[in-house]
Amino acid sequence: MEKGVLLYEGKAKQIYQTGNTDELWVSYKDDATAFNGEKKETLTGKARLNNEITSLIFSYLNDNGVDSHFIKRLSETEQLVKKVEIIPLEVVVRNVVAGSMAKRLGIEEGTALEQPIVEFYYKDDALGDPLVTEDHIAILNAATSSDLTILKEKALEVNKHLINLFDNMNVRLIDFKLEFGRTSDNEILLADEISPDTCRLWDKDTNQRFDKDLFRRNLGSLQEGYQEILSRLGGASCTK
Amino acid sequence: MEKGVLLYEGKAKQIYQTGNTDELWVSYKDDATAFNGEKKETLTGKARLNNEITSLIFSYLNDNGVDSHFIKRLSETEQLVKKVEIIPLEVVVRNVVAGSMAKRLGIEEGTALEQPIVEFYYKDDALGDPLVTEDHIAILNAATSSDLTILKEKALEVNKHLINLFDNMNVRLIDFKLEFGRTSDNEILLADEISPDTCRLWDKDTNQRFDKDLFRRNLGSLQEGYQEILSRLGGASCTK
Repeated sequence: MEKGVLLYEGKAKQIYQTGNTDELWVSYKDDATAFNGEKKETLTGKARLNNEITSLIFSYLNDNGVDSHFIKRLSETEQLVKKVEIIPLEVVVRNVVAGSMAKRLGIEEGTALEQPIVEFYYKDDALGDPLVTEDHIAILNAATSSDLTILKEKALEVNKHLINLFDNMNVRLIDFKLEFGRTSDNEILLADEISPDTCRLWDKDTNQRFDKDLFRRNLGSLQEGYQEILSRLGGASCTK
Repeated sequence: MEKGVLLYEGKAKQIYQTGNTDELWVSYKDDATAFNGEKKETLTGKARLNNEITSLIFSYLNDNGVDSHFIKRLSETEQLVKKVEIIPLEVVVRNVVAGSMAKRLGIEEGTALEQPIVEFYYKDDALGDPLVTEDHIAILNAATSSDLTILKEKALEVNKHLINLFDNMNVRLIDFKLEFGRTSDNEILLADEISPDTCRLWDKDTNQRFDKDLFRRNLGSLQEGYQEILSRLGGASCTK
């Protein structure tokens, strides 16, 4: 296993080639960003926390029959994944109204939805990742209608498993963002990360936030919140 | 026929009671507004132009089997309509990319769509009339799923007839916004207005604008553009 050329650097991760053309080396960064990069800070330990949490969650999903690009954790801040071509959509699942949905619709944050909903946002920093309809997605050639059916099904399946996982940790899964990619065999596979950067996670008793809203809204220490999630996931053994 | 109590005043129209509880008296205003009311001007003649154009278009649609709330023109700036409870959705039909869609998706204005699309915006000035998905509409209790099927069908039917109407005037129908209401019999009926305030209308040869973008973007005289539409509609006889 060797770390090759840097292929891509995003806001929170670097992606490197490996000796195997079907596999990529992901290195998490300590950078926190919000509001499309307008707010930015380096938070020591964030890379480790998100790598550990994502590794545990993808392993848990795999144990529950949900495949992803995750192959294995390589180090505190690195993991090996299958190479996929990312579909340029943020697939957002919401169980409780919060964040942009609360603002968009004028509904109080914390309002539970009768059933989860799936939204699609077009991944384009210059456009501010806008909410898009299925017609928009077709016009943008971002995905086909049958792709969207698969994305919605997979997203709701992930939601079901994550609700169970977090419920057992006394944490309420408010909403989360997934990304998917296409393998060389044209299979649609869950990709990117699942961490407190991409989920809203509230303590079931106190509504304490354990997610990136700590940083976005200056609610407290991001690292303490993420560490709490890692600890409740039983991830102490991963931090060796 | 008598003009009763003022029931509602919007940005472009006043709505009055009549002696008949099933009918309303609409009085168009000379006010032009854009960007959710941030830009505002009084443009003498606009009330007459929109009243005449809307009356002609609703009559044309009626002749083509599309019912609306329109009953008859009462004066240069007034019309009589059936009372409906407005469904709080702006139903937007697009044949060509322009305006907010061009900005949202980063697609050049003027790009023709392979087929028309229908978008829904939630009518709420405080929220800036946001784009909403069908799930959002259900959560907001703005309309049921079967209502939305009817709205989309009716909107595309109106589009088909308006494309024909404007095509014969050498005008390209870029996009337009419709509103619908419910009658006391719970029938969904086309309502509000169809005018250069609510449509984008470009000359087919020169792309000259004949719609509210004249005002929004300071492209020239709104009244001259709207008068051109009225003249091409053959509406001279209405201006007596």
